Amino acid sequence: MNEKIRIGMIGLGTVGTGVLRILRQNADLIRRHAGIPVDVERIAVRDLSRRRAVDLPPDVLAGDAMQVVDDPRVDIVVELIGGYSPAKELLLRAISNGKHIVTANKALLARDGAEIFEAARQAGVYAGIEASVAGGIPVVKVLKESLAGNRILSIYGIINGTSNYILTKMTDEDREFADVLDEAQRAGYAEADPSFDVGGLDAAQKLAILVNIAFGASISSDRIFTEGITAIRPLDIEFGKEFGYRLKLLAIAKAADGEIEARVHPTLVPDASPIAKVDGVYNAIQIVGDACGDLMLYGRGAGSLPTGSAVVGDVMDISRAIVTGASALPVEAPAPFAVRSMEAVSRPYYLRFMALDRPGVLSQISGILGRWNISIEKMIQRGRKEGGSVPLVIMTHTALERDVQNALVEIRGLTCVSEEPVLIRVEE
Amino acid sequence: MNEKIRIGMIGLGTVGTGVLRILRQNADLIRRHAGIPVDVERIAVRDLSRRRAVDLPPDVLAGDAMQVVDDPRVDIVVELIGGYSPAKELLLRAISNGKHIVTANKALLARDGAEIFEAARQAGVYAGIEASVAGGIPVVKVLKESLAGNRILSIYGIINGTSNYILTKMTDEDREFADVLDEAQRAGYAEADPSFDVGGLDAAQKLAILVNIAFGASISSDRIFTEGITAIRPLDIEFGKEFGYRLKLLAIAKAADGEIEARVHPTLVPDASPIAKVDGVYNAIQIVGDACGDLMLYGRGAGSLPTGSAVVGDVMDISRAIVTGASALPVEAPAPFAVRSMEAVSRPYYLRFMALDRPGVLSQISGILGRWNISIEKMIQRGRKEGGSVPLVIMTHTALERDVQNALVEIRGLTCVSEEPVLIRVEE
Repeated sequence: MNEKIRIGMIGLGTVGTGVLRILRQNADLIRRHAGIPVDVERIAVRDLSRRRAVDLPPDVLAGDAMQVVDDPRVDIVVELIGGYSPAKELLLRAISNGKHIVTANKALLARDGAEIFEAARQAGVYAGIEASVAGGIPVVKVLKESLAGNRILSIYGIINGTSNYILTKMTDEDREFADVLDEAQRAGYAEADPSFDVGGLDAAQKLAILVNIAFGASISSDRIFTEGITAIRPLDIEFGKEFGYRLKLLAIAKAADGEIEARVHPTLVPDASPIAKVDGVYNAIQIVGDACGDLMLYGRGAGSLPTGSAVVGDVMDISRAIVTGASALPVEAPAPFAVRSMEAVSRPYYLRFMALDRPGVLSQISGILGRWNISIEKMIQRGRKEGGSVPLVIMTHTALERDVQNALVEIRGLTCVSEEPVLIRVEE
Repeated sequence: MNEKIRIGMIGLGTVGTGVLRILRQNADLIRRHAGIPVDVERIAVRDLSRRRAVDLPPDVLAGDAMQVVDDPRVDIVVELIGGYSPAKELLLRAISNGKHIVTANKALLARDGAEIFEAARQAGVYAGIEASVAGGIPVVKVLKESLAGNRILSIYGIINGTSNYILTKMTDEDREFADVLDEAQRAGYAEADPSFDVGGLDAAQKLAILVNIAFGASISSDRIFTEGITAIRPLDIEFGKEFGYRLKLLAIAKAADGEIEARVHPTLVPDASPIAKVDGVYNAIQIVGDACGDLMLYGRGAGSLPTGSAVVGDVMDISRAIVTGASALPVEAPAPFAVRSMEAVSRPYYLRFMALDRPGVLSQISGILGRWNISIEKMIQRGRKEGGSVPLVIMTHTALERDVQNALVEIRGLTCVSEEPVLIRVEE
């Protein structure tokens, strides 16, 4: 039996530094909980000469990641460089060398997760991916293990901290997107190029991983309908409030009638729902299972130590498995499933039109909606503005996306409608 | 290797029925996730002739729980009868027969958890206790596994649904305790004898279990300072709101300076904190770890299916361990620790006095507080009432419990103070 567990780490950036800090600071506790000491044996870095935030013996660093992956002493390879290549090649090589892997690489898992899991299964090694979704929130383990006896019905995630920070500020301070984004960039809550976050792609990648775990369904993130928050106006947040809703960028997955729905878009959620109360850079994932009912996990979705905590949790699970002599469990492939096209999704919708303030406009618009089987639940028509456009805001009953899109094509053609109509999907 | 996992269940009440329903309804999914079919082999019930909510083959039921515990076919004994005896004897016998155990018995674990875990450790069997705290919320697994690399700093739990339901109604509808309790009893949210819930004992038992898992500290629930919500008045909830707080019955545990603090009492928490937003019968546990930061788990703390979900999760963990050939991990005993006495706890305090509305009263009271090193942060003195008593409400800076209690002794002796002073502890 091993006298200790030896980690080979690839990458020593924010998360890697967090992992090192935790392993050192809590070494005693980790040894006790894992049943064995856990130590970092090798770390591959791009620049050997760079000064590091943590002290390291000189022989720990390696300039070539292949040295780490091929090192016979290494039990677990922890990949923290991100991106598709060479991360994928390194992980597959580690697996074929019989090493367990832990990765925080959401982009790679969202695209090639199925392939990597299958390689790990065939090699009989563990693949820990907790850190790839929602940082310090243990949603992967909860879905895989705690709720393993549940049929998962739906998942609603606030899993992009940048977007949630911006929407929270826009909501609480009635400010425009561009203005808040600018502030968020200066505060370090948004990247210089924020498009990956505010465009919804980051959330879509994480959702692809969650769908795989919750439904055993392999869906690439580019097949997930994705709409970001860049076009959101404070005006619509305000009208949403009047209807009793709060606007969030949600990653949504549902199982229904043998199909899976997966989508990322700005969403109006009821004020009283727990997910409506998740503000700022925090992340949260609400899970509905047929047995557990609704469950929400809330916490820090990013950062050196929170994400490091997830990596260390996986490392310790694998360490325990090594100590207790557990083989990796061969998981049976799930039943095939269909992904529901966005057109076939049905929801209530929030619609805003800027229409000339003259008689007959409401009747024209509601006539078109009616012909497309869209019925109106609530409506707000704002004050008179001589000769100008005024907002006409409609909350619909449940309607089919395809019908709504078709109705919008017709409504755009009306001469009384002056701007591009606004559509926001609603979850109850 | 086993062809299936055989469960012996003791008790077929609310939770037992939930477990059976889940195992049947999701049998396929459970077989796939556990890597093996999971089946209930025997169920001990008190009354063999009673009609059951689920259909059972006649040879499954046993009138004597000992038959289940001694049945050589049984791999896992699931104990769902609660109480100290015969539950304890049955569990220890199951363990000495080499069977893994799963239990939802919070009373027993809060008193004798250390003894039961030690017996399981020596016998090399698993003890699953997820269902003993907070129903469908997987707090045990998250603390034990996901956060195993964290030093846990504090835990704040809303873990008694009845009390939270009552406090929520009192807060939102400005109603008296007795009135809401009466309604809760009629709605089935409170027992005919509610004292175990509203007196805080139920929360204290669950906290004892959490303290054991989070800090490796064995503390019996009768050593936990416990104050219920029966004396809470809507008046104080209102004043709390004015100061920016919401009143919750919290179970609190903290590690500080090598000591553990553990207490259950009505607590004013900041309006903006996530735990302040947990309403109705829902439970939530906020955990602060040195790496993960703050994390909150929110969900259904009771009920047939949610608690059944926790039992099934444990059963599946053990089933996987059996399939993968994992031995139970011998856990090293934690370092000894001291429990901080309530007198040595320091907090901000909310204090309300009913005092005669005459000059000099505030000076007398603040003089006493000052002599006991209690400084006032905020104060509200309510309207004039000729010759009668008016509320004087004080929010203190952090003060020592011992000092506050001593000050109250002196203040009670003042002739200008007409009622028993109200003290509510505050968490920031």
